[in-house]
Order: sequence, then C-alpha cells, then structure tokens
Amino acid sequence: MKARSDGRASDQVRKIEVIPAVQKDSDGSVLIKWGDTHVICAVNIEEKVPNWMKDSPEHAGGGWITAEYGMLPGCSDRRIHRDKIRSTGRTHEIQRLIGRSIRACVDMKQLGPRTVQIDCDVIQADGGTRVASITGSYLAFRLALFRGKERRAISQIPKTQLVAGLSLGRVSGEILVDLNYVEDVKAEVDANLVMNELNEFIEIQGTAEKGSFSKSQYQAMIEAAEKGFAQIFEIQRKYLREWGL
Amino acid sequence: MKARSDGRASDQVRKIEVIPAVQKDSDGSVLIKWGDTHVICAVNIEEKVPNWMKDSPEHAGGGWITAEYGMLPGCSDRRIHRDKIRSTGRTHEIQRLIGRSIRACVDMKQLGPRTVQIDCDVIQADGGTRVASITGSYLAFRLALFRGKERRAISQIPKTQLVAGLSLGRVSGEILVDLNYVEDVKAEVDANLVMNELNEFIEIQGTAEKGSFSKSQYQAMIEAAEKGFAQIFEIQRKYLREWGL
Amino acid sequence: MKARSDGRASDQVRKIEVIPAVQKDSDGSVLIKWGDTHVICAVNIEEKVPNWMKDSPEHAGGGWITAEYGMLPGCSDRRIHRDKIRSTGRTHEIQRLIGRSIRACVDMKQLGPRTVQIDCDVIQADGGTRVASITGSYLAFRLALFRGKERRAISQIPKTQLVAGLSLGRVSGEILVDLNYVEDVKAEVDANLVMNELNEFIEIQGTAEKGSFSKSQYQAMIEAAEKGFAQIFEIQRKYLREWGL
Amino acid sequence: MKARSDGRASDQVRKIEVIPAVQKDSDGSVLIKWGDTHVICAVNIEEKVPNWMKDSPEHAGGGWITAEYGMLPGCSDRRIHRDKIRSTGRTHEIQRLIGRSIRACVDMKQLGPRTVQIDCDVIQADGGTRVASITGSYLAFRLALFRGKERRAISQIPKTQLVAGLSLGRVSGEILVDLNYVEDVKAEVDANLVMNELNEFIEIQGTAEKGSFSKSQYQAMIEAAEKGFAQIFEIQRKYLREWGL
Amino acid sequence: MKARSDGRASDQVRKIEVIPAVQKDSDGSVLIKWGDTHVICAVNIEEKVPNWMKDSPEHAGGGWITAEYGMLPGCSDRRIHRDKIRSTGRTHEIQRLIGRSIRACVDMKQLGPRTVQIDCDVIQADGGTRVASITGSYLAFRLALFRGKERRAISQIPKTQLVAGLSLGRVSGEILVDLNYVEDVKAEVDANLVMNELNEFIEIQGTAEKGSFSKSQYQAMIEAAEKGFAQIFEIQRKYLREWGL
Amino acid sequence: MKARSDGRASDQVRKIEVIPAVQKDSDGSVLIKWGDTHVICAVNIEEKVPNWMKDSPEHAGGGWITAEYGMLPGCSDRRIHRDKIRSTGRTHEIQRLIGRSIRACVDMKQLGPRTVQIDCDVIQADGGTRVASITGSYLAFRLALFRGKERRAISQIPKTQLVAGLSLGRVSGEILVDLNYVEDVKAEVDANLVMNELNEFIEIQGTAEKGSFSKSQYQAMIEAAEKGFAQIFEIQRKYLREWGL
Repeated sequence: MKARSDGRASDQVRKIEVIPAVQKDSDGSVLIKWGDTHVICAVNIEEKVPNWMKDSPEHAGGGWITAEYGMLPGCSDRRIHRDKIRSTGRTHEIQRLIGRSIRACVDMKQLGPRTVQIDCDVIQADGGTRVASITGSYLAFRLALFRGKERRAISQIPKTQLVAGLSLGRVSGEILVDLNYVEDVKAEVDANLVMNELNEFIEIQGTAEKGSFSKSQYQAMIEAAEKGFAQIFEIQRKYLREWGL
Repeated sequence: MKARSDGRASDQVRKIEVIPAVQKDSDGSVLIKWGDTHVICAVNIEEKVPNWMKDSPEHAGGGWITAEYGMLPGCSDRRIHRDKIRSTGRTHEIQRLIGRSIRACVDMKQLGPRTVQIDCDVIQADGGTRVASITGSYLAFRLALFRGKERRAISQIPKTQLVAGLSLGRVSGEILVDLNYVEDVKAEVDANLVMNELNEFIEIQGTAEKGSFSKSQYQAMIEAAEKGFAQIFEIQRKYLREWGL
Repeated sequence: MKARSDGRASDQVRKIEVIPAVQKDSDGSVLIKWGDTHVICAVNIEEKVPNWMKDSPEHAGGGWITAEYGMLPGCSDRRIHRDKIRSTGRTHEIQRLIGRSIRACVDMKQLGPRTVQIDCDVIQADGGTRVASITGSYLAFRLALFRGKERRAISQIPKTQLVAGLSLGRVSGEILVDLNYVEDVKAEVDANLVMNELNEFIEIQGTAEKGSFSKSQYQAMIEAAEKGFAQIFEIQRKYLREWGL
Repeated sequence: MKARSDGRASDQVRKIEVIPAVQKDSDGSVLIKWGDTHVICAVNIEEKVPNWMKDSPEHAGGGWITAEYGMLPGCSDRRIHRDKIRSTGRTHEIQRLIGRSIRACVDMKQLGPRTVQIDCDVIQADGGTRVASITGSYLAFRLALFRGKERRAISQIPKTQLVAGLSLGRVSGEILVDLNYVEDVKAEVDANLVMNELNEFIEIQGTAEKGSFSKSQYQAMIEAAEKGFAQIFEIQRKYLREWGL
Repeated sequence: MKARSDGRASDQVRKIEVIPAVQKDSDGSVLIKWGDTHVICAVNIEEKVPNWMKDSPEHAGGGWITAEYGMLPGCSDRRIHRDKIRSTGRTHEIQRLIGRSIRACVDMKQLGPRTVQIDCDVIQADGGTRVASITGSYLAFRLALFRGKERRAISQIPKTQLVAGLSLGRVSGEILVDLNYVEDVKAEVDANLVMNELNEFIEIQGTAEKGSFSKSQYQAMIEAAEKGFAQIFEIQRKYLREWGL
Repeated sequence: MKARSDGRASDQVRKIEVIPAVQKDSDGSVLIKWGDTHVICAVNIEEKVPNWMKDSPEHAGGGWITAEYGMLPGCSDRRIHRDKIRSTGRTHEIQRLIGRSIRACVDMKQLGPRTVQIDCDVIQADGGTRVASITGSYLAFRLALFRGKERRAISQIPKTQLVAGLSLGRVSGEILVDLNYVEDVKAEVDANLVMNELNEFIEIQGTAEKGSFSKSQYQAMIEAAEKGFAQIFEIQRKYLREWGL
C-alpha cells in the first residue's frame, strides 16, 4: 500500500472547514474549504415557483430547488476562459447533480411554493469540487431556512436529512476516498456518490477512465465510501450545532 | 409481481432491430429500433486528430472518439423546440456518455491518428434513447471501420470489445430492466449502465428520482442488469455475423 | 442528347416512395424517399395561434402554418457541423419556402385558430431536399388533419389542394427535371418550382449559377416542369388513396 | 385601370437618384434614393480570398464577391429591433441574392484573387430595398474598381455587364412594376427579377402571396419587367457617364 | 503652437451641418455632419414604459429615454465586422452615455409615461462620433417632441435644456478641442464632456492614453471646453430657430 | 454637516483589509475587503502577446494587460442572473477601466512580450466594486511579478507606480468620499477617479445622476479625492512592506 501524496490514509477524508455568512445579502451562504478545494455556496429563496410548475398537478402546492455552478477563471492551474465555463457539458452535469441532491433532502410539499436557488462558485479547485458543492450547499440551505423563519417569510422550517457528496477512485489498483487533483488525474476509475444520513444513496456515478471495472471492484468502492461519509456527516453535524441549528 | 404494460417479464429487454447503412455517405450508419425508440447512429472517421491532442504527449500517435446527440423535434409526445435541444444539460450529459462508452471499446493507439465522430439522432423516443444510442453506435463504428479497411484508409482494423448500454429502474418497488417511457416516468430509481462483453462496467449511473435507495437495492439492480446485457450482446453478435464482420 | 447518370429521361422524375407514420407522437409524419433523398416530414397542430397574429385584424379567426428545416450531420458527403445548420441563410430560405408553400394549399380561415408546425429533417441528401420537403409535408399535413378529426380536435377537415415542389436545371445546355446531386453541381441554371393541382404556381425561383439565361430558355423550363409535376401529383394521389384520405 | 397612389403608370419606375462617395473610406459607395427607398451601398475590396476558396481547384486564381444587408432601426414605419435584423431569414435571403447578382456581372478569374465585400444598409424603406441594393451595389462596385485602378491595387479593371434588380407585382389583378410599400402589402403576387444589360436573367423569383398564378400571368409579368429594366439601365448608364466610368 | 492638420485654431470646433427628417417614419431624425463625422440620429417615442419601471415607485408616472449606437461596416478606414459592432465594450459605453445625456435634458415626470428610443448610426467616422451622436440626438429629440404634439400623442411638450457633447485632448502637449481621427490617435489625454446650456456638466470623462495628467492640466481642458461648447450651442440654436422650434 | 450612515467623516475611506494568495494557482491573487465590498483580484501572466499586437510596430517588443470583471450571483441584495453579468454594458465599462488603469502603472516595453490577465470577481458588493478592483489588482499584479521573478519566468521586475481607484459623490449637496451602497443610490453626482502615487490622474469620470454639476463643484470633488487617495496609498504601501515587496 502506497502512501498518498498528502499523507492521508486511503479511507481518510481531507480536512474540511466551513465559514458561514460570507455573503451578507444571500439568505444562506458558506465558504467550504475542503482541503485546497474552496467553494462559495449561496442559497436564495424566492416566494414564487418556476413557470413550468404552474400547470403541473404533480407539483401543486410544492416548491423547487435548482442550482448553478461556476468557477472563477483563476481557480485552477490553467486559467479557464470565462465565457466557456457556462457552456461546457461538465458544468451542466454538475449543476444538475447539485440540484437533484439537495432536492432529495427535503419534501417539496413541506418546502411550500418557493424556489430555492443555489449558486456554487469555485474559488480554488483541487479535486472534488462537485461533492464539496453538494456538502456545502446543504449547510447553506439550512442557514437560509433559518433566516427565512427569523424574518417570518417561512412559518415552519421543513424537516431535512443531511446530504453530502464524496468522490472516490481506483488509483494504481488501490481504492482511495476523496481524491485530490493529482490523484484524480491518475485514477483508472472515478466515482462520485451522494448519500443521506440514513446511509442511503441519492446518486451513484462511476466511470472507467481507463479500461473497465468489475462488479466486485465496485462493491469495494461502495464499502469504502461508507467510512468517508461518516466523517463528512460528523463535520456537518458539528457546524450545525455551532450555529445553533 | 405486476405485469408490465407491454407484457414483458421484469428482466426482459424489448425487441431490437438494426437496419444498416441508412446514410450512404456516412462511413457507418444504422437505424436501431429498440422497441418504439428509434435512433440513427452515424459514424464518420477523419484522418486527423483534434487540435488539443497535438500538444499532448499522453495521446501521441493515438486517435479520438467523440459523439453528438440530437432529437428530431417531433420524436416525443410534446414537440421539442429545435433551438433548445442543443443547449440543454441533458443533451450534454448524453453525448459525453456516448463518447466515453465507445472510447472504452478500443485502444486509442491502435485506432491511430484519426477522429471518430459519432452522431446519434433520435427519430422516435420511448425511453432509453441514450442506451440505444450507445448500443447502435458500437455497431455503426464496426461498419465504419470495415468500410475504412475496404477503401484502404485503414490498413488494419483495431480490435474492439462489444459495448452496450442498458437502463433499469425501480418502479413501484420492483426492479425492471429496459424501461419504456411510461415506466421511466413512474420510476423511483433510474439507472443507466454501460458494459462490455467481459461483463465489466464502463459506466454506472443511478439516481433516486423519489426518495433514496439502499446498498442492497442497488446490488439487486446490478444483478438484474447482467441478464439484460446478455440479451443485448446476443443481438449485437447476430447482426455482426449477418454483416460478415 | 446525353444519357443521365441514372438512366432517366430528361423529363423523368426519380422513383418516390412514402412511408407514413414514422413518428407515432407527431400528428402526421412521413418518410419521403425521393431517389436517394430521404426526408422525414412531421406535422404537429396546436390549438393556439402565434402571438403576432393576436393583434392582426387581417388574420382574425384564422390559423397559421410555419416550417422548420434541418439536416442530420451525416446526411451529406461531408459531415455538416450540427451547430451551423440552423444559422445558415440556406436553411432560412428553405424553411420560409416550405411554410409559404403549404400555407398556399389551404384557406387560413377554414383552418381555424390553430398553428400547424412542420418539421422537415433530411436523413440523406441527393439533390432536391427542399422540393421533397414540400411534397412530403403536404402529405404529412393531410395525415395530421385526419388524425385531428379522428380525435375530435378538428370538427371539419378544411379543403386543400395538392401542392408539390420540383427542381429543374439546365445542364450542359439541356433542360433536365428533378436534378440529383451530381447534376445539380454541374447545372448552369437552377430552378425550384412549387405548383398546385390546378397547374398554377405558388413559387417560381430561377438562378443562373453560371452566366445568365434568356426569356425563351426560362419558357422551356416551365414547359418541362409541367410534365414533371404531373408525375408527382399522381404519386401523391396514389398514397392518399392508399391511406383512405 | 386604376391610378397608382403616386400617380405613376403601371410600367413606370420611380425616380432614382444616386449620390456617389458617401463614405470616404469605402473603396466605392453610393446612396441610392429610389423613390422613398434610400440605401447606402458600400464596396470594399481586399487583396485576399476567403479560406474556403484556397483548397478549391475550381476557383483557383479567381476572386469572390459577397454581400451583407442591414437596416437602420428607424428605416421603417415600426422600429426594427437592432439585434433581430441580422438573424432573420429575410436578411439572409436578401444578402445571398445581392451577392449572387453582383457575382454574375463579372468573370471571377478576371477579378483576380480578391474579395469584394458589399454592404447594403437601408436608411429609409418604402418597398424594393433588395432591388435598390442590387442596382446601387453595381454602381458602387464600378466606383471601387476605378479607385483600385487609380491607386494601382488593380492593374486592369475587369469588364462587367450592367446588372440591376426590379420588383413587380399583381395588385388587384393588375400588373405593376416597381411596387412601393403600400402596393407591396396589397400584392397578390410578388416578384423580384435581376437582369443584365443583355436582357438576360440572373434571377427570377415569384411568389403567390394570396392564391396562385398561372403560366400566362407570369408571362405577362416578364413582359412588363423588360420595360422597367430599360428605364433602370438608362439611369445606371447616365451616372456612369457623369462619373467618367 | 503647431497648426492643426485641417488648419483650425486649437479651440475651434469643426463645421457642423444638420439635415432634419432623413427618415420619414422616425418621429424625429437628423443627419449630423460634424466635419467628416456623419451620424444619423433617430428618435422614436412609444406610449409605454419599460417593464422594469412598472414596479418602481421612484419612477411612477414618469418616462424613460434609452439609446442604441451602431456603425455602418464601411464607416471607417478598416471595414468593421457587422456582427462585432453590437458586442464590443466600446459600443456599450457609448450608448449608455448617449442615454444618460439626453435623460439629463428633461424632467422624466414631465415627459410622462413614454419611452424615447434613440438610435445613432455612424455613416462616416472621423473622430468624435459619440459627441456628435449626443449633439444630434438632442435635436432629433426636439423634432420628435414637436411631431408628437402635432399629431396629439403629446399634449404639452416638456421643457428641455440644450445638451451637447464635445471631445478634447492633449496632443503633443497642447490642448485641442474637437479632435478629428488623426489627432485622436496621437492624443496623450482624451476627454469627452457633456454639458447643458447653463454651462453645467452632465458628464466628465478623461483618460490618460499615455502616462498621466495633473490636476492643473485637467483644469486647462475644462477651460478650453467652455469655448467649444459655446460654438456648438450656437449651432443648435440656429437649427432650432430655422425649424421653428 | 450630517453624519454618514456608518459614522465616517465625509473625507474618510472605509477600512480596507487585503488577504494575499487566495488562489494558489494564480500568479498573484488577493481578496480585498473594502468595507463590505469584497473582491477577489487574480493576476496571471502568460509568456505570449495577443494576436492583434503581432502586426503592430507601435507595440513591438512590449506586452499587454487586460482585465475581466465578474460578480457572484449572490453578491448583491438581489440575485444577479448569471448569464446576464457578462453581457451588460456596465460590466464592459468596468473591465475596460480596470485594464486601462493597471496598464498605466507600468511601461509596456519594460513588461516585455507577456500578457497580464486580470480577473476581478465580486464576492460581496457594497458600493465601489470597480475602484476596489483597481486597488486590489495593482497589489495582485505586484505579487504576480514577484512570483514570476522567483520562478525565473521574469528576469527583472519592471518598475511600477502605485495605482488606486476611489469613488466620490455629492449626496444631499455634500461631497463624500468612498460611497457605500446606500450613499451611492442617493448620490446626485457620482465620480470614479484613478490616480497614481505622483497624484496624477489616469482616469476621471463624473456623472450627474440627477440634474447637473458646476465647474466649481467638480473642483471641490477633486480636492476631496486627494485626501482619500492618500489614505489608500498608505494601505497599499503597508501591505507591500508586509509582503516584502
């Protein structure tokens, strides 16, 4: 078993620090520093629903949660052209994933006829920006609900379940949780999982970057993920306690 | 166990018919009729590589495979606005998935300094358009390689492995393979898998559309998938034999 | 008089085959195989009128017919870039022509306050895609009106006149009807005509690709066109009879 | 026979005035005032050919002529949204027509390896902007060739033929040449013709705006056109003499 | 003190000629010929306000004035690509400046619930297009108000103050008013001022193109500007008298 | 004299804190916290020049500095639509101003054949984002030059002058330096100045938001600005000392 570049054990998640209220005007916002991956997650709640919901009996009385994802041009080791960020397939994939993940933590009927707009903007990228975005957005959403209650826009805060994301990979044949950038580049298999605090999945994605992977290998990744998620949920719970939520 | 709307067993794939050479000018093309999902998959091979590969030592001497996905406006039960098809996140996700899947069936160095352009266009949609696109594109790719050999653009056809896609879902608590549209709309969990003929995965995607899913439930989906893939690989082999490939 | 590359007489239209209902969800759809030019024509009818008509006394109570035209990237001998198809002047010209032609076959007041959306998508191109689109769209429109009656959206099918398109050209000094691609490339004069079953014109377009053409030469093209249109109307009538319309 | 709103005879062209050199920096430019239709036609010649010509043996050694067409937002009785002008099908149709028309007046080989860029911008519109653009662009082209010779960029001015455009229509059953805006709106048939000084056609376009038109009716329009073109060529010749060309 | 290329004194504005009503359909329009800078300024007044004003108590009952700026491709010594004009930062800057300047000449409440749309299009450019646009737009606005009164859309013409623009620069250390193009290119400091007839500023912009400039140098430019503005206001007054306004 | 909402004296600049190296991959980066206005300024230096410079004798051997400006959607009291940020005129104006300002602090020839790309992204907005961007970008540029020297991409750091920006305004008749958002909204006159450490101007912009302003009023603003700039230069010098630059 080889040592990881930053000395972590194979099943060890990087250090995660969360700074709340980095945008005074957003209903809820955090800066999540997940190792050297830094993402601002902002949540704003509007007292209206999207047009497409208005004619949908299935969604009557309920709300909606949607997400957008961006990167500062200098977040990465090669400057990213500002006009290209929005139009890439990767950006579309990630923002759809964030939206689905946070929608899964709450009952849309309990949310009521509101739209929750999540904005994740990557300040610094070192692998795992999408899972940091999900993990941070859940916390920003909790802050936004609380502020909504405080200023009486929301009469009762809907019940939510903790939701977080985690990346994993097979690197030189070994399964590692929470890949940083240099590990991600070398990974043969790359997975992103989204889980709730009941240890149930919201999303499973696994891609063979080189070759393919067997059923048993995937099985092993799922096992490893559970250890990683336990660490992340612990951190989420710690901050929620600190913030009195 | 409830009967499916079209009378299939829960682990039964729909009838698949493949018509070759539907575009005389494409190097390889098929119309895959997978139940009522009809997709034209066209493959064209250019004797050059994309610009970004030119400075990449990792890719030196090798080729590239890329895919685009479209839908005719009238393919679905509600006309799709022509200008919106290209820009949705869903389209970006699907065409990236098709590209990755076909790249995984062949060694890029053996492919040589060529670009393989895949175009999948949905004529009629009834669920599973992305997995039909992958399954059909593999066959169109084989036709294109053969024609390249015939007209001496390619001196030796590179070895490939069969690659196919399959959708699955949990509908009313039951696991079903190869969802049609009405099943897909009702599914609580929706999965798309890509596998090769060695029964190894290229891609695993699973999404909880409503609620979440447990590890054991996902396990059961993987088991069911293997039976479905066996049926699809058999169909691919039958056509390749018919075409003398 | 030189023989044509496919053995046709100078005034002979290619073989035309029409397959109905290639899209189960469109109100009316056909695949028209006009020689090696294959186009899917789909017609969908909405029970509303465009916004610009609402304030127009001239259009009060009437409907509208509009068309869009696309090409699959692999339809031609050189792959067409998917993002460029929509924005070219040629595409704009063709879809405006299709719309005008089908509008001319029916009284807008009799059509009633509906919008007829025509989509023509070229699967395979071998010359004459615009006239095949017009000829096929008329038939798909008839199918759509009939289905509208069947499901009681339309109480009385409005009366229409057969409408069809035909290309002609002067190639090496000789007038040929229904040019295929190799003939079209060599043509000195290129014409597209749209006619109804009363042998009256809806549209006349003639362009000197090389040099110019005299009044008498154009006269001769008009004469030749009448023979071609007779063949096409016969085919339209045959299919309408077969379909019981 | 009814009188026309501006008192003209049915075969009488409006008064046409041409002011040369309205842009000191363009190689050739005119303001053509054709009745109340005012268009600035500017021609600039670059000593290079478009990229697509470089690999075309057919075009080797020759040049190219291309045109763009625009409208000032306030040129019409309803302000035209500036961002929409460029993207309409009508604009595409017109600029393609202008380009084809001027290309037909000169031999591309004699033009030599140059690109002629024509810009037509409508200052005030009262019907017939496209035919005014063609008629004015021919004159601006002649001015540009002369200036090219003067400053020795062009060693020998290529021979050209006069080219002009003319609109016609059937209004309340009567054939009128050179429709102004109020006539154009009422026309049942609308035609635009492009002719050279040999009385040969470059382009014929005829559209039934309401109903259809017979072969003999179109014949009558062609006859009327010849009288109109005679008046226009006379005006072109007068200005060319005045300018010493 | 060096002579200017066109023989003017350092504080002398170029000859300015204004031709009214160059677009019969615009409510007010002028062609302003400011030396060799020629701009068409058109003003159209709509009896409605922009959507964003509807919910703004601050703007209740008042109107709005907005401007767009364009250039004909051939207006300059190098043809400007038509599609690029609209998207440059320079265009955005200029049209915002024109809008602000004309808004400053009238009380929005007195204007009433109307939108004034200004379009400035540069026919020929020789330096100072933005200040010519402002100066001409004021006059076109006056013509538009008058016509609105005449046809009873406006019951009482709101009171306005003369507004005009002027460019200045430091060229080879000397302060010059109203730079033409060749002077503008050489200027070390470039300023654009907008003033009303009370000799008060609407806008001050000064930019060091090379190096920087001191407080006293800027002071000197302001002094020189006043002499220039006096000449321009005199010309505006002359035309308003001529037009009986 | 009324007290300001945050208790500052009329000529007092808000508290400014600067955190260096907030993006490890950018050559130089700072987070500037100017009151509640927080902007990340990132500078990246490429060893090449823009294409347009290659044919420009005037720029031979020299470099270029360019800037882009963005805002996080949640930076303001109303969420800003992500797709609109890039296309507004305001954004274009600001990024052009930042680029000009930083270019003015260094000799392009001494910079050498490099492109300096500045990215300013507003995390939180409370008035004065453009002047905070300029002030922070200067510091990030110094960090980037130093790192370039360290890793030997730059052999000799070019000499620069301190450059900073400052906003001012006339609010209820009183001149205030460094407006925050609530002051900015109420300002009758709004000015943005850019100055270097020699107390010379790079840019002067002054706009009457309501009414107009006299020469003497503008004079008073210039006087007040000097006091403000002295405070800002002191802060810049303090950080440069701290960082050993």
